[in-house]
Amino acid sequence: MLQLKYFDDYAIDEKRTSQGRTITETDIILHAGQTGDFFPHHVDEEWCKTQPFKRRIAHGTLIFSIGIGLTANVINEASMTYGYDRLRFINPVFIGDTIHAVVTISSKKEHKKPGYGLVTERVEVVNQEGAIVMACEHLLLVKKKILE
Amino acid sequence: MLQLKYFDDYAIDEKRTSQGRTITETDIILHAGQTGDFFPHHVDEEWCKTQPFKRRIAHGTLIFSIGIGLTANVINEASMTYGYDRLRFINPVFIGDTIHAVVTISSKKEHKKPGYGLVTERVEVVNQEGAIVMACEHLLLVKKKILE
Amino acid sequence: MLQLKYFDDYAIDEKRTSQGRTITETDIILHAGQTGDFFPHHVDEEWCKTQPFKRRIAHGTLIFSIGIGLTANVINEASMTYGYDRLRFINPVFIGDTIHAVVTISSKKEHKKPGYGLVTERVEVVNQEGAIVMACEHLLLVKKKILE
Amino acid sequence: MLQLKYFDDYAIDEKRTSQGRTITETDIILHAGQTGDFFPHHVDEEWCKTQPFKRRIAHGTLIFSIGIGLTANVINEASMTYGYDRLRFINPVFIGDTIHAVVTISSKKEHKKPGYGLVTERVEVVNQEGAIVMACEHLLLVKKKILE
Amino acid sequence: MLQLKYFDDYAIDEKRTSQGRTITETDIILHAGQTGDFFPHHVDEEWCKTQPFKRRIAHGTLIFSIGIGLTANVINEASMTYGYDRLRFINPVFIGDTIHAVVTISSKKEHKKPGYGLVTERVEVVNQEGAIVMACEHLLLVKKKILE
Amino acid sequence: MLQLKYFDDYAIDEKRTSQGRTITETDIILHAGQTGDFFPHHVDEEWCKTQPFKRRIAHGTLIFSIGIGLTANVINEASMTYGYDRLRFINPVFIGDTIHAVVTISSKKEHKKPGYGLVTERVEVVNQEGAIVMACEHLLLVKKKILE
Repeated sequence: MLQLKYFDDYAIDEKRTSQGRTITETDIILHAGQTGDFFPHHVDEEWCKTQPFKRRIAHGTLIFSIGIGLTANVINEASMTYGYDRLRFINPVFIGDTIHAVVTISSKKEHKKPGYGLVTERVEVVNQEGAIVMACEHLLLVKKKILE
Repeated sequence: MLQLKYFDDYAIDEKRTSQGRTITETDIILHAGQTGDFFPHHVDEEWCKTQPFKRRIAHGTLIFSIGIGLTANVINEASMTYGYDRLRFINPVFIGDTIHAVVTISSKKEHKKPGYGLVTERVEVVNQEGAIVMACEHLLLVKKKILE
Repeated sequence: MLQLKYFDDYAIDEKRTSQGRTITETDIILHAGQTGDFFPHHVDEEWCKTQPFKRRIAHGTLIFSIGIGLTANVINEASMTYGYDRLRFINPVFIGDTIHAVVTISSKKEHKKPGYGLVTERVEVVNQEGAIVMACEHLLLVKKKILE
Repeated sequence: MLQLKYFDDYAIDEKRTSQGRTITETDIILHAGQTGDFFPHHVDEEWCKTQPFKRRIAHGTLIFSIGIGLTANVINEASMTYGYDRLRFINPVFIGDTIHAVVTISSKKEHKKPGYGLVTERVEVVNQEGAIVMACEHLLLVKKKILE
Repeated sequence: MLQLKYFDDYAIDEKRTSQGRTITETDIILHAGQTGDFFPHHVDEEWCKTQPFKRRIAHGTLIFSIGIGLTANVINEASMTYGYDRLRFINPVFIGDTIHAVVTISSKKEHKKPGYGLVTERVEVVNQEGAIVMACEHLLLVKKKILE
Repeated sequence: MLQLKYFDDYAIDEKRTSQGRTITETDIILHAGQTGDFFPHHVDEEWCKTQPFKRRIAHGTLIFSIGIGLTANVINEASMTYGYDRLRFINPVFIGDTIHAVVTISSKKEHKKPGYGLVTERVEVVNQEGAIVMACEHLLLVKKKILE
């Protein structure tokens, strides 16, 4: 879905919630295959039984990729990703957990690029029990509506 | 490959370089399928022809996932990921580009968790022309060898 | 397996039964990724628990694709697909169900394309309990043996 | 994106156009693997060179799955798929072609299920040259707003 | 396709030729992901340019898996795989090469398992130029028709 | 990880053990899709219930591919694969089994290629109960350190 939302249109504390997605064994195997990260935490059930979590856990990069993907259902043509800050993996995600993303506009700042401002979205990925499993700040460079 | 490397063993400016990996159309299609991010930048060649880059570009989350995956060939049992800071996508990655990761230990700090310190690795993902396409700081919580 | 079977060779009520195939969570995840259809019916186990079926269900397009694929073990060089009519999804397919296809020649008709006739195969996809989950009519344009 | 659109809300000739999607070699290989349909039309480039089209072509079931998937960006909770009629593959789709879907409401009818009506969407899948490659009628059972 | 072919039914020098299959970049990426073998020979185009073959080559295990898969279109319920001997990778397979398998019954021997004999199939995988890229002996334990 | 290990450096009975890997339903589905081998032993749970093993089993080519892949974490630039002998599938591998590979240098021989010798590695793939599921001899052509 295409949208045109300018820097001026973003309001602090504006919030949106994504659809949910169940993390499956398939997702972990595909992600191991995509990244080459076959650490035993993700692909060796026997080894995991000897560890504190007792089970395989999803890769951090998988949760980041799916978490950000869940927020990507609206394309804002006035905005582009500048980067991510303070990415933290707060709780493990297990096979069968269902996650969704909550996005809150947390700050708006001027930016040196003329005609653009910097919008920060706080992204929280939450599991089926309401626990935050991942958080980060998504920095967006967004066009201003009015030429300065 | 398993390894045991303590906080004490990390030296500032220590550097390692990963293998290379060519980013293929297949990687982009699989990543779109894994994340649900089918933005036209990644999957619509005709639309891309009308844009400044003229071609499809890889997802940021794909480059992050593969970039970090390239560094994940040694498992340090004394270390765990704490998070990532200042993740930036500096240049686009196109189909056929070959990337590798360069990891440099950039800082060591005390941490409130007893018996652990915080190691920061600077991760740079570099393409076949030597341009940095992605950079971030990987924060590691690492066990100390000597009990304090 | 190649075969040469002409319009003249098809007999009404001729029937063949395909191999079976268990529909897995993997199939659903791969199909969501191929089609971009991440509707919660297919990928959100928590949401599904609140719905009448209580569980994730396979995409209709997945059952159609696999159902038709199961019939595609013999290549008839004299025949080509003209289309499909009356495609109906009659019962849901759940993860772990095993389906097979039953194909019955249901009609033969003249066709305006010289030297060809239209054969209709009734395709029924059946689960492990004998219930029809999908049905359609597969229209085939088939060469005639004898020039008219 | 969730939506609530009743039978009463559909208007004949209402039209929407989906995003585009480039059909890649990867899509064909993944679809062959998902369906088990490894017909030489799709996976044997040498054989294809001896055929009228000279190149590999996408599976009909792939174009149907992706074509319908392209239309599946809005979830209408008042609607469910009843089936598809007159599915036809009108032109071949080659690797590198970019398709999008055009959906037009073509009819509204009463239905025996109390409180529901039948909406027919004409779905046309169109390539980058404007040629229709696939067409079908998507039948939807849609809740009525006002109880009769 | 199911078949019942006894030890007695196999004739020395009997030969069958499989369908063809073009080896794609997708196949190599999927196989790297399935096996965790990301050797630069398969996934680093830049490194390959510095090597004698100048291009990425398919994994040996990929060619073996697809080569044997090509022969697996008929299920003989009287036969089971005993193992493989003298598996050799004779020529490299590049992206875009099209391979097929040629199977020749090369020997029949008694076996200690009562009621069974050992059949050896010579499997040769051949590319589009007629060069053998892989060869092996497939050993089959096959039921005898007549009880001894 | 790159390494340079010459023919002279290999010692008989030298042994290394790989990481473990749990074989998942996903691996089997992906392998069926990669090879086109949809034999009911691998993809039809209902049929398998009627067979001695009662459950789906992994393809031999899958276990070979993953087993060899597990040994492929060190790239020896002085060595190349010559082939495999006596490949045997000794026990079935079921969904959920965890396998690892044990590699033992079993012989060193002269070879006609000047400056090279032939090293044989015995590869055994072992499941979580310590049972060998697959064995083979991996033949390596390895450069000699000292010119003869």
